[in-house]
Order: sequence, then structure tokens, then C-alpha cells
Amino acid sequence: EEEAGSPSLVLAIAKYLDRLSADVMYILDGPVHPSGRPTIVYGARGNIGIELTAYGPKFALHSGHYGNWVPNPAMRLAQLLASMKGEDGRVLVAGFYDDITPPTAEEQTMVESVPDDPASLLTLFGIAAPERVGLSLQEALQLPTLNVRGLSSAYVGAEARTIIPDKATAAIDVRLVKETPADRMIKLVRDHIVKQGWHVVEAPPDDATRARHSKIIQIRARSGTEAFRTSPLLPVSKQTVKALTTMFGEPPVQIRTMGGTVPITQFIEALGFPAISIPTVNFDNNQHGENENLRLGHFFRGVTTIAAVLTM
Amino acid sequence: EEEAGSPSLVLAIAKYLDRLSADVMYILDGPVHPSGRPTIVYGARGNIGIELTAYGPKFALHSGHYGNWVPNPAMRLAQLLASMKGEDGRVLVAGFYDDITPPTAEEQTMVESVPDDPASLLTLFGIAAPERVGLSLQEALQLPTLNVRGLSSAYVGAEARTIIPDKATAAIDVRLVKETPADRMIKLVRDHIVKQGWHVVEAPPDDATRARHSKIIQIRARSGTEAFRTSPLLPVSKQTVKALTTMFGEPPVQIRTMGGTVPITQFIEALGFPAISIPTVNFDNNQHGENENLRLGHFFRGVTTIAAVLTM
Repeated sequence: EEEAGSPSLVLAIAKYLDRLSADVMYILDGPVHPSGRPTIVYGARGNIGIELTAYGPKFALHSGHYGNWVPNPAMRLAQLLASMKGEDGRVLVAGFYDDITPPTAEEQTMVESVPDDPASLLTLFGIAAPERVGLSLQEALQLPTLNVRGLSSAYVGAEARTIIPDKATAAIDVRLVKETPADRMIKLVRDHIVKQGWHVVEAPPDDATRARHSKIIQIRARSGTEAFRTSPLLPVSKQTVKALTTMFGEPPVQIRTMGGTVPITQFIEALGFPAISIPTVNFDNNQHGENENLRLGHFFRGVTTIAAVLTM
Repeated sequence: EEEAGSPSLVLAIAKYLDRLSADVMYILDGPVHPSGRPTIVYGARGNIGIELTAYGPKFALHSGHYGNWVPNPAMRLAQLLASMKGEDGRVLVAGFYDDITPPTAEEQTMVESVPDDPASLLTLFGIAAPERVGLSLQEALQLPTLNVRGLSSAYVGAEARTIIPDKATAAIDVRLVKETPADRMIKLVRDHIVKQGWHVVEAPPDDATRARHSKIIQIRARSGTEAFRTSPLLPVSKQTVKALTTMFGEPPVQIRTMGGTVPITQFIEALGFPAISIPTVNFDNNQHGENENLRLGHFFRGVTTIAAVLTM
């Protein structure tokens, strides 16, 4: 059931809780650091999807006959999105970064020690500079995001028509960290939208709603997955580092928070003991894609990695 | 050839210019005013299409692994669009409204006399208020527009994926008035974009361009059609008003500039005499659409209208 959301697993944990006591849960999901070195990951960001649909006229209108008079929902949606993030990449939604625990001195050293190669990544991705000046990749992953993952309104390209569209939609995802729970972040985004003068609806607006409100938007929030973070200062964390260092003759790469999401938080909470991720597979394994692969060297080292922590 | 851009007509005009002298050109295209009253139209807005494609990473990236670090082209495009128009509906592109001749006192009276019914239009379209406070529909049509006619980036709805998109596109149309020629308006929009820190490319960027510039955008401008406007103070304009008034026993509705575009400017310029539009068909004729129709009353009154101006 792993790729189907494991619906039976949470129920099974509640039922057999007394038989599931342990010191630590090791998560074997995901790849090791691109450097190829043994890797320990202490946390993962959560994720929520939010879809915003701004409503204009009931049907698309001729942009000549009514341009300058009928409001344009695509422009107003662009203005709303622009109000959410500064040119410097900082999210402007009030409270977005509140209560985030800064890394301890020891964690900060850990974050700075990750052997990332930003120049190679920039070249690989074809971008000249990161979004925020002065923020390393690992530092960027310690913060929540507000990402526009899709936009749609009427037509572009050969199909473009000279119209004022009837609506415009932006799909957003917000990655979460430990201190920014899904429900609170959805509320902050919603509050921000209301503060920009929008009237929020739960379904496409009826005539009475349209007659009362100039800026109407539907907000659909879904698929909240909370973040988790385990302290590297816990005895079991330090023991794990020691076991891998002993086995491989060099300290593992330690990641405070990985950027992606692992849907594990409810298990961690139900079980009551900490989780640490020890990935084993190669970075370029094309997970969930074509030519999914497992490098044999990583397979054998994965066996050794598991042996190291089971015998520590 | 009318719906095919009339490629032979401009050539024919140049060839037979000496046989085409006249006092005025009457254009019979388009519908009469929604009130149903006989209508004279002295001008039409022009139109240009501009497509903007903002480039992000070379391929879509996992929004968890790289969110906060790799810049998002959909957000940056939204920021650019928002920089072009204020919340009050005024276009913020420098020079956009420069040199526009305000209506004369007589034209202003004419603009204010058009029997529009804004309350009915708002209800029909399902909008609470026009885009710009204090600007009537006819006043709005005297100004150029900047309209987002389409947006596209990656996916929304059920197909949304947790990615940083590789690009984002906005299709824009700019309606022109007599004093805002197509080439100048394209240049103003382009200058505005450059002023916001974008590097403009003519084709998708290569690796060297990507390595040098943080904000890369492709601008494609096309299908420029200029506006035209004939003075209602010309003797032939006044004669036409008088002829219709005499025929129908009430003065016609007089429109200084209609919002849409009639591709007639190059003929007006080639011929060297003024053009006036005298539409004859009903407003709800579903032009170019399903159930295109012609109300018989309008057909017969159209015959009378043409007779009125031919015998004036």
C-alpha cells in the first residue's frame, strides 16, 4: 500500500501500539546526497496545495468592446500573486516566517557542512543565480516556501483570442517546516488574500455574490502533509552518526531538513519515538520516472549501512 | 477576401487610385448601438498582440528539493504583469497615455450623450463595478488598453504537479487609439520590461544567455492594426448626422471611438479621404458565432440608412 497512501497502516499502529515500541524509526526512502557520501537526514518539509481561482465576467468578453471597463481576472490574479512575494524572494504573507526555530549553533555548522556544489546545480538547471541572495541551498530548505506551480487563464499562443477572460487560476504549493503547521499556513494565506480586498468563496459565485463583490476568489486547499524534524543532538542521532562513521571511515553528510516531503509525521506522532532518514540509493535513480534504476555500488553500501545501524 | 485580410485590396487601391476619389468612405461593418437607435461611429481602436514568456530552469524542478532556491518564472511573470497596471486600473507603463488628444467640448458632449445602460451591462456580465472608478464605458474606449488575454504555466487542477515550472507565458493585447501607434506602444511595453530588470531575447535562451541573466523573457509582438478617428466636426460628418436625423426623425447615437478594431486604416491613408462607420445590423447578431442572425427590422432600416446617406 506504500504508493497508495497506506490507509491501513495508521489503523494498524493504533491497534498494535504495545508491540511497536522502539528507540528510533529509520526511514530508508529517498536518495543519498549527490556527492554520493553516506547521508543522514533529520527532517523533511511538509506540503500543502492551494488553488486560487479569480473570477471576472460570467463569460469571456471582447477585449475591444469592453477593455478598460470590465475588470480582468488574470491581471488581478497576477497582482495578488505579486503581493505575496517580494522581488528579493521573501514571502510577504504576514506571519509566514513566525515562530521558526533557528538552527542551533551545532545545527548551523551541520547545515554549512553539507558538501553541495551550487555552481554545478546552477549550470545544470540553466539559471544565473538563486532566488534569494545570500541564502545557500541548505539554508533555503530550512524555511517554508510559496511556489506557483501552475497558471491558467483562457488561451496563449496560436489559440490566443482577443478577450477579457472569465477567470484565472493559480496552483500554489507551500512547503512547510516543523514550526509551520498546514492549517495555520492555509489560514495565513487566506488572511493575506482577504487583506488585499478579495471576497473568498467556496464555489463559483452566484449572481447575488457577483453583484456585491468586485474581487471574488475561490480558494481550494488540499493535501496537507506536516513536516517533521528530529534533533541531531539526541543520543540516538549521535549514535547513528558514530555507527556510520565507524563503518565507512568518514562522517556522513548530515541534512537538517530535506526539501521534499515524506508522509511520515502521523506515524512519528502515533509511535512517540523519533525518526531519522538514512537513504541508501543513488541520487540519479529517476525515482517514479522512466529508467528508474539502482546503482549496484549503492545497493551494496545500502546493505552495509543498514548493518551498521542495526549493530550499533 | 474580406475574412482573409483582403491581400489584393491594398494593391488594387494603389493601382486604381485615380478612379477611387470620393468625399467619404462609409464602413457598414459592425452592429448599431445596443439601444437599437441609428448609429454613427467616427473611429475604432487599433490592436496589437504581445506574448511574453518568462524563462525559469531548463526543465521543471521538484518544488520541494529546490523551492526557495531556484527562481520561479510564474511568480516573476506575475510580478512583471502587476508592475504594468495599478489596482485602480491605470496602466503604469511610462508614456502609455502620452500625447492622447482629449475630446473637444463638442466631442465630450457626444461621448456623454451615448445612451449606454451600464447597470444592465454589469448585471449581464455578472460584475459588481467597472475596472476604473469614475470612467464611463464611452470614456474608457477613448483610451488605450493593456489586457491580459491568457496565462499559461505548467498545470493547474487535477494535473497540478509539485514543480517549479520551466517557463510561464502571458498573452496580452493592447488596444490603440489614434495617437498611440502600434510600433511606439510595443516599444513602451518593451522599455518597461527592460526597466524591471529583464533581459529580452528573441528566441528561447541558450546556455550562455542563461548563465549571464537572472530574468530572461521572450517578447513576441504581432498583428499590429492601427486605430482611426474622423472628426465629427468635418462638414461630411455633420451632413451625415443631418441626413440620418431627417430620415429617422431623431438624431443618431454618435460614437467617437468604438472599442473594437476595424482593419481599415491603411485604406483610409491610401485613399486620402475620411471614413465614417454607419452600422446597420442588430447588436445581438452573434457575429462570427453560432446562430449568426440579422433581425429583419434592422435589415429594412439598414436599406433606409444607406438611402439616406446616398441621397444627402
